[in-house]
Amino acid sequence: MNYNFPFLALVGQEKMKTALILAVLNPALGGVLIRGEKGTAKSTAVRALADLLPYQTVIEGCAYGCDPAARDRWCDECRERHPEGEPPTLKRRIPLVELPIGATEDRLLGSLNLERAMIKGESVFEPGLLAAANRGLLYVDEVNLLDDFLVDVILDAAAMGRNFVEREGMSVTHPALFTLVGTMNPEEGELRPQLLDRFGLCVEVKGLADSRERMEVIGQRLSFEKDPQAFAGLWAEKEKNLGLRIEKAAGRLMEARIDEASLEKAVDICLKLGVDGHRGDLTIIKTALTLSAWEDRPVDEEMIVTAAELSLPHRMRRKPFQDVDFNVKDRIMGSAGQD
Amino acid sequence: MNYNFPFLALVGQEKMKTALILAVLNPALGGVLIRGEKGTAKSTAVRALADLLPYQTVIEGCAYGCDPAARDRWCDECRERHPEGEPPTLKRRIPLVELPIGATEDRLLGSLNLERAMIKGESVFEPGLLAAANRGLLYVDEVNLLDDFLVDVILDAAAMGRNFVEREGMSVTHPALFTLVGTMNPEEGELRPQLLDRFGLCVEVKGLADSRERMEVIGQRLSFEKDPQAFAGLWAEKEKNLGLRIEKAAGRLMEARIDEASLEKAVDICLKLGVDGHRGDLTIIKTALTLSAWEDRPVDEEMIVTAAELSLPHRMRRKPFQDVDFNVKDRIMGSAGQD
Amino acid sequence: MNYNFPFLALVGQEKMKTALILAVLNPALGGVLIRGEKGTAKSTAVRALADLLPYQTVIEGCAYGCDPAARDRWCDECRERHPEGEPPTLKRRIPLVELPIGATEDRLLGSLNLERAMIKGESVFEPGLLAAANRGLLYVDEVNLLDDFLVDVILDAAAMGRNFVEREGMSVTHPALFTLVGTMNPEEGELRPQLLDRFGLCVEVKGLADSRERMEVIGQRLSFEKDPQAFAGLWAEKEKNLGLRIEKAAGRLMEARIDEASLEKAVDICLKLGVDGHRGDLTIIKTALTLSAWEDRPVDEEMIVTAAELSLPHRMRRKPFQDVDFNVKDRIMGSAGQD
Amino acid sequence: MNYNFPFLALVGQEKMKTALILAVLNPALGGVLIRGEKGTAKSTAVRALADLLPYQTVIEGCAYGCDPAARDRWCDECRERHPEGEPPTLKRRIPLVELPIGATEDRLLGSLNLERAMIKGESVFEPGLLAAANRGLLYVDEVNLLDDFLVDVILDAAAMGRNFVEREGMSVTHPALFTLVGTMNPEEGELRPQLLDRFGLCVEVKGLADSRERMEVIGQRLSFEKDPQAFAGLWAEKEKNLGLRIEKAAGRLMEARIDEASLEKAVDICLKLGVDGHRGDLTIIKTALTLSAWEDRPVDEEMIVTAAELSLPHRMRRKPFQDVDFNVKDRIMGSAGQD
Amino acid sequence: MNYNFPFLALVGQEKMKTALILAVLNPALGGVLIRGEKGTAKSTAVRALADLLPYQTVIEGCAYGCDPAARDRWCDECRERHPEGEPPTLKRRIPLVELPIGATEDRLLGSLNLERAMIKGESVFEPGLLAAANRGLLYVDEVNLLDDFLVDVILDAAAMGRNFVEREGMSVTHPALFTLVGTMNPEEGELRPQLLDRFGLCVEVKGLADSRERMEVIGQRLSFEKDPQAFAGLWAEKEKNLGLRIEKAAGRLMEARIDEASLEKAVDICLKLGVDGHRGDLTIIKTALTLSAWEDRPVDEEMIVTAAELSLPHRMRRKPFQDVDFNVKDRIMGSAGQD
Amino acid sequence: MNYNFPFLALVGQEKMKTALILAVLNPALGGVLIRGEKGTAKSTAVRALADLLPYQTVIEGCAYGCDPAARDRWCDECRERHPEGEPPTLKRRIPLVELPIGATEDRLLGSLNLERAMIKGESVFEPGLLAAANRGLLYVDEVNLLDDFLVDVILDAAAMGRNFVEREGMSVTHPALFTLVGTMNPEEGELRPQLLDRFGLCVEVKGLADSRERMEVIGQRLSFEKDPQAFAGLWAEKEKNLGLRIEKAAGRLMEARIDEASLEKAVDICLKLGVDGHRGDLTIIKTALTLSAWEDRPVDEEMIVTAAELSLPHRMRRKPFQDVDFNVKDRIMGSAGQD
Repeated sequence: MNYNFPFLALVGQEKMKTALILAVLNPALGGVLIRGEKGTAKSTAVRALADLLPYQTVIEGCAYGCDPAARDRWCDECRERHPEGEPPTLKRRIPLVELPIGATEDRLLGSLNLERAMIKGESVFEPGLLAAANRGLLYVDEVNLLDDFLVDVILDAAAMGRNFVEREGMSVTHPALFTLVGTMNPEEGELRPQLLDRFGLCVEVKGLADSRERMEVIGQRLSFEKDPQAFAGLWAEKEKNLGLRIEKAAGRLMEARIDEASLEKAVDICLKLGVDGHRGDLTIIKTALTLSAWEDRPVDEEMIVTAAELSLPHRMRRKPFQDVDFNVKDRIMGSAGQD
Repeated sequence: MNYNFPFLALVGQEKMKTALILAVLNPALGGVLIRGEKGTAKSTAVRALADLLPYQTVIEGCAYGCDPAARDRWCDECRERHPEGEPPTLKRRIPLVELPIGATEDRLLGSLNLERAMIKGESVFEPGLLAAANRGLLYVDEVNLLDDFLVDVILDAAAMGRNFVEREGMSVTHPALFTLVGTMNPEEGELRPQLLDRFGLCVEVKGLADSRERMEVIGQRLSFEKDPQAFAGLWAEKEKNLGLRIEKAAGRLMEARIDEASLEKAVDICLKLGVDGHRGDLTIIKTALTLSAWEDRPVDEEMIVTAAELSLPHRMRRKPFQDVDFNVKDRIMGSAGQD
Repeated sequence: MNYNFPFLALVGQEKMKTALILAVLNPALGGVLIRGEKGTAKSTAVRALADLLPYQTVIEGCAYGCDPAARDRWCDECRERHPEGEPPTLKRRIPLVELPIGATEDRLLGSLNLERAMIKGESVFEPGLLAAANRGLLYVDEVNLLDDFLVDVILDAAAMGRNFVEREGMSVTHPALFTLVGTMNPEEGELRPQLLDRFGLCVEVKGLADSRERMEVIGQRLSFEKDPQAFAGLWAEKEKNLGLRIEKAAGRLMEARIDEASLEKAVDICLKLGVDGHRGDLTIIKTALTLSAWEDRPVDEEMIVTAAELSLPHRMRRKPFQDVDFNVKDRIMGSAGQD
Repeated sequence: MNYNFPFLALVGQEKMKTALILAVLNPALGGVLIRGEKGTAKSTAVRALADLLPYQTVIEGCAYGCDPAARDRWCDECRERHPEGEPPTLKRRIPLVELPIGATEDRLLGSLNLERAMIKGESVFEPGLLAAANRGLLYVDEVNLLDDFLVDVILDAAAMGRNFVEREGMSVTHPALFTLVGTMNPEEGELRPQLLDRFGLCVEVKGLADSRERMEVIGQRLSFEKDPQAFAGLWAEKEKNLGLRIEKAAGRLMEARIDEASLEKAVDICLKLGVDGHRGDLTIIKTALTLSAWEDRPVDEEMIVTAAELSLPHRMRRKPFQDVDFNVKDRIMGSAGQD
Repeated sequence: MNYNFPFLALVGQEKMKTALILAVLNPALGGVLIRGEKGTAKSTAVRALADLLPYQTVIEGCAYGCDPAARDRWCDECRERHPEGEPPTLKRRIPLVELPIGATEDRLLGSLNLERAMIKGESVFEPGLLAAANRGLLYVDEVNLLDDFLVDVILDAAAMGRNFVEREGMSVTHPALFTLVGTMNPEEGELRPQLLDRFGLCVEVKGLADSRERMEVIGQRLSFEKDPQAFAGLWAEKEKNLGLRIEKAAGRLMEARIDEASLEKAVDICLKLGVDGHRGDLTIIKTALTLSAWEDRPVDEEMIVTAAELSLPHRMRRKPFQDVDFNVKDRIMGSAGQD
Repeated sequence: MNYNFPFLALVGQEKMKTALILAVLNPALGGVLIRGEKGTAKSTAVRALADLLPYQTVIEGCAYGCDPAARDRWCDECRERHPEGEPPTLKRRIPLVELPIGATEDRLLGSLNLERAMIKGESVFEPGLLAAANRGLLYVDEVNLLDDFLVDVILDAAAMGRNFVEREGMSVTHPALFTLVGTMNPEEGELRPQLLDRFGLCVEVKGLADSRERMEVIGQRLSFEKDPQAFAGLWAEKEKNLGLRIEKAAGRLMEARIDEASLEKAVDICLKLGVDGHRGDLTIIKTALTLSAWEDRPVDEEMIVTAAELSLPHRMRRKPFQDVDFNVKDRIMGSAGQD
């Protein structure tokens, strides 16, 4: 059995952790892009978060893990197999799909099942990684080194919640609603603006500057490597609570409301910063609403600022960010730790 | 069931909406190229428009959706299968074909049906996306990032209303009369002049600068995302009326007339602006005639100017556009909203 | 049924029309290269001309459309199938083969018939577009964007009147005598000198500068688009006469003679302009002889000048053309219109 | 039978030898990158070290050489075949896999067994070089000339101790815990920073400057080439003892402890040198712990400095290394020789 | 039946004609490279020369056209089939193989006969164009545009008189003794020096500057195009005599002798001009010997100069050629015409 | 029957001839790289040398030509087929494998025997050119134009005396002990330093500057070309003696000894010239020992200098070579000629 490093045992990097929780809580935000130095626990954080999320119910035998309760989003196969609407179900972990380096378009999008094609002469669709990521997370490490074309495909699927495949004479569509998490080191090349713009949130990370914290990082890591199971045990309770808190907050999401003043604040920030198009302000608002659900209190100006800090860094044309008063109080994880 | 954001609920972007309606009304205009920033509702507008168009009658079992009433444009299969001229018919939505990123030439043009080729040794044509777009819309997002070759193929088909396939020993032709809609962000690379010239109309879009309008955009969008069905319901009546108005205008298209003075005005504008070749003035005239059908009144100078504004931006050699008095009064959508 | 815009209804562009008629009349001239802006009716002119040419007699069942009367040019199959020399015949239109964008070498040259190769184990040649163009026209739009290699293949076939295929273990040759028409927009890249030199004639076209003429262009075009059949009817008689005139002129071609003075004039022009090699003067002479057949009168100095104007523009090393007194009196089409 | 040059007979290059021993002792360090001139016995050292390591026990018939004693790391096949947990075992040499120049991704990662796929229609995984390297060494010569993509794959597998294959419709994972040794000549191109950072240790080597030592090198080499077996015999005892010492040290690894002061020293060095992320200090600590096990005494400051010298050279942004007091006393090999 | 333009009817270009005759007469010279403008009758000359050469005797059924009289050069098949040494024979034209543009390596070198490989499971060699050229001419138009690799292959075969094929698991060798003729327009790119050096002779051609001669060129060409058969008839006798003269000269080749003074002259020219290596002087001598056979008189200084003029232009490092007294008196063709 | 030009008939180029003899005598030297102008008899020399070497004894039916007397180097097949150790034997010429231009990796390394794979479903290794070169010479003309990857493969095999193949699911190794001879013209591009360093010896050649010698070259060549057999006969005795002398010297190789002073001299030269790594001095020593065996007298300082002259030119970083007193007295060939 594999043990992952616990999410809450990660030292510092609060903004990244906040962004990840919000993105998981509300897939409609459009995922997170994490930019920064190597060796800053990005991968660890993503795997850790996936680990603590509550189990989900899926329809048995469905390649996409359709939700038995959301019949209007069922895949074609589920609709066909269960016309009565009462399919057998299973519990499973929230899937975390890591795009392996060099994964091909075939494997990502799905492809013709060659075996059956050759043996039985049927053209059957073999679901790919986008299918596997449905209702879970898709993690793309070093997304800036990926072929533009594949990034585009992933962002399209993420935006529409569906995967459209038009290849080899096949024309298939299936649900692909996932939280996209990408990481990149900007020293090694940028994404083009169009692609940046389509990530919902963005955070910059760097190594800790504080000597105490660094030692804490090392201490945690060594303890974990020595005995992963024992280390995980120390954090199990807190992790479970965080998972439940996320689940509860997701339930509150539909009820979150925003007032006129906050809307105006969001629009003002975007106009002031000269953000292109309307995705910037829309994301600020949606992020603020998600924060409101997460913190279980109404949207306020502070939330708008936090949301802007997470929504805009990748949408500004190299303008410095300093002229607006932004600062995140790390309150999210602080309170999560104490939950 | 999927609900699209309603066309009339789109805030601002009147020129784009006008261009789309005219292009749909009269496929002979040669489609629209929408240039501008990301996040300006281009895709939303196209899908929304396709949604409100009235159903069309097609011949049952025809891969190209041939019109039972236009026998002289039937595909070869329809001619062969229905020599008596009275085929069974179906109603269907106007097709909106979105070119998926990375779609191959095969899938676009159609290809040999390999399954039948291998099993039965017959070489049968498998119609592609150009076939599917016949009598509908073909939407190409980020057309400037597409391989020049594929853009050329699409523009050729759009110009001729037919698709000619000469590959793998096949020589096939079929109807492919569609309204082409392309979008591009010029920051990410231009189309070459030859290709630009072959788009009928062209509009530039950018994000709204008005704070009120931006808030309206957000409000509409959030309402829609919360409950697409309810939101669509609010606009259903107006959308239906717009669809009927387009249908009626299309019926008037053959009757539209233009006087000598308007012709001269169009030619003058082109000569003044130094537009290459004759596609510029021809498109102005055809656009003016389409406007005339849409507004149900004779072509006047204002229509010529509006038409020029939509027909020339991509046909001038980087000359500024300001020296001619152009302005669109957004009258089209304004009145459409009140219809 | 498809109606093409009538050749004689084209407004202006006399030089292009002259060049096309001469090239069709005498395939030994080596075709025409039309250089110029987009939107100047180049494609229209080619299709229109092909349309009005008289029918030709071919051997039934021959993939190359061999002429029953020219036994010494028959393809190998015709020789074999009709040893007695009296094959069944058919009438057909003069073929106009348009090279589809992205046509592969296979499709152009011909290829192994895979179906028969796989099923029967025979290696049978599947004739390509060069075969289809035999005794007709091959139209290559945007020839400068074509792969150099394919241009070379086409020019070789055009020069030799035969297609030689050495591929996939096949060694096939068949007649491929056609009039090559290429178009290009020099703004988008030049052909290399070697290739330019191998086109017989060359004309530059641009949009009309005269406001009246432009309006006439629009008028004709709109009339045609409204009712192609009726419009074609208006021109049918004149078009038929032009076709017959071309046929008659072709019959006179073998009798055309040239005197010493004209020969000297042609050589002088080439020496003066520093034209490389001998293709320049040879083409002038052959063009003058073709003009003589077309106008049914002896070669005179004016014809030499006209011929030089059509034969040299692409053969000079960027030297200006002005220092020689060139001007075409458009007499060809003028008289054709009155025929 | 092939004889390798003995590890202890290598003259000089103490730092390289230390790094290799530590990396082999503790695969969790992340391998070694050896940078330097050609002709400095890099390959010889790696092969020599592999040669003297004690035999390991593996499960019979397992393609990955699973350790019978570490049931929680067994491959899927071993788990399935030996549910009772008492598999037959074999002794084997520690595998040394040298990545052949031009090895393909297929061969590295493993691939579909085509033979069985074609004959029996089964899709069976054919393990590759990463599988063969499990529990041993993977040696990549001129790693900087390797395709970035393959380096990435290797580093990923090295980091996770597992190989994940997502290709050709296969989704396979298997243990791939190995010590990675890469060599490169920086004159011929660098690795990108991300990749450098993922190698655990790094040493720079160059040819000896001392004339006596050089003569010793030649002498040893000539003796070896003349009679490899006799030469090997001279060193056999010492080599065997080194092997046993490594084995014993590996057994002490889990018991190694570090005090607060040493931790702080490591963090200080990294902050002072401005090393990105946290991989630098973590590697120093882990290397110091490995040194402690190797020397069988507690971690002290000197060990931290030695560890830093091995852990940081490739993690600093071209900053000179001199401002920290580093020097390795070559004590490791000195004592090894006397063991 | 196809008629070629007669060799002797070519106006001017004496140096090219001399070089071609010498190259054909003595394949050991290493062929000719003709450099110069397009449209200077290069192809015509090569085809014309091939046409007038006497028939050769070949072994019936031999793919390489082995000479029944030269048993020590027979291909392996001939040796095997005719152990008794008395094979059935045929007369055939001297083959002229024109390398078609885009000919593949397969077709050039020969390849596995796929048909037989698939049907009978035998791997049989399918001879290529080098095989077809054996004992004849290989004509490569625009050799500078050919892939370096193919040029190398051709030059290797030309140098060794054999073709060595090591591909697809085949290891085949067969005779490939031919006269190589390449043409190129240096404006379109050079050959690299190594390749230039391996052509035996080299001539530069340009269009005629004399007005009379140009008119003669046109006159001949027009006469030929009007009635190829009649035109060929006019020259038939002279052509036949030239062919016989070449045949007779070839017979004298083995007897040609050179004196010390001439040898010295050749070496002096090369040393003076700084020609690399020894191929320059060797070629001068061999060319002079061939001239001697052709003119049926001993080598004299004038022949050395003529030979140098043909052997060195492509072997000097851009040094001007003027400082040596070179001039060819065109005596060869002059006398040939009078033969 | 093919006759090669005799080795001893080559005029001048003593250093090249010495290097070739030493490399053949002692394959452990690592081959020779011959740099210089084209047309300097490089290929001729290699073929000539291979020709005069004594026959070798091989195991009958072995694809690698295993030496019956060196059982510890037998290939796997020989070990398996002849467990008793007394295989049937054959005499054969020392193989000279010339790498054909464009030889593929498959053909070089060996590959899967497709025929047997397809027909019998077995995956059998088809030995390639490295196998054929075992115990002989591998000649690579224009090695600098070869793909780096293939050069690497060849150098690896040359260094290890074995070929390791890891492709298409095969994992094969076989003996590949050969003398590598490469040639290159540095004007056409260099080898990268890593590759240069791995050639044992290196000589620079150029055309002879002496007029007498050049005439001698021509004379020999013409005599040879006129009657290869007769010419070869003139040199047969001397060639045979040279072959025997090489064979005898090879037998003395194991006994060659070197004293301290000579060792020191070699190391001094390398330190003085700043040669990277240890391959330089090692090669000097091994070359001196080979010279000692060849000349049958002890190593002296002069031999060290000669050896350095052959071992270092390609190992210095563009430093001039003049500051060391180097000169070869051509004594090797001189005495060989008198043998």
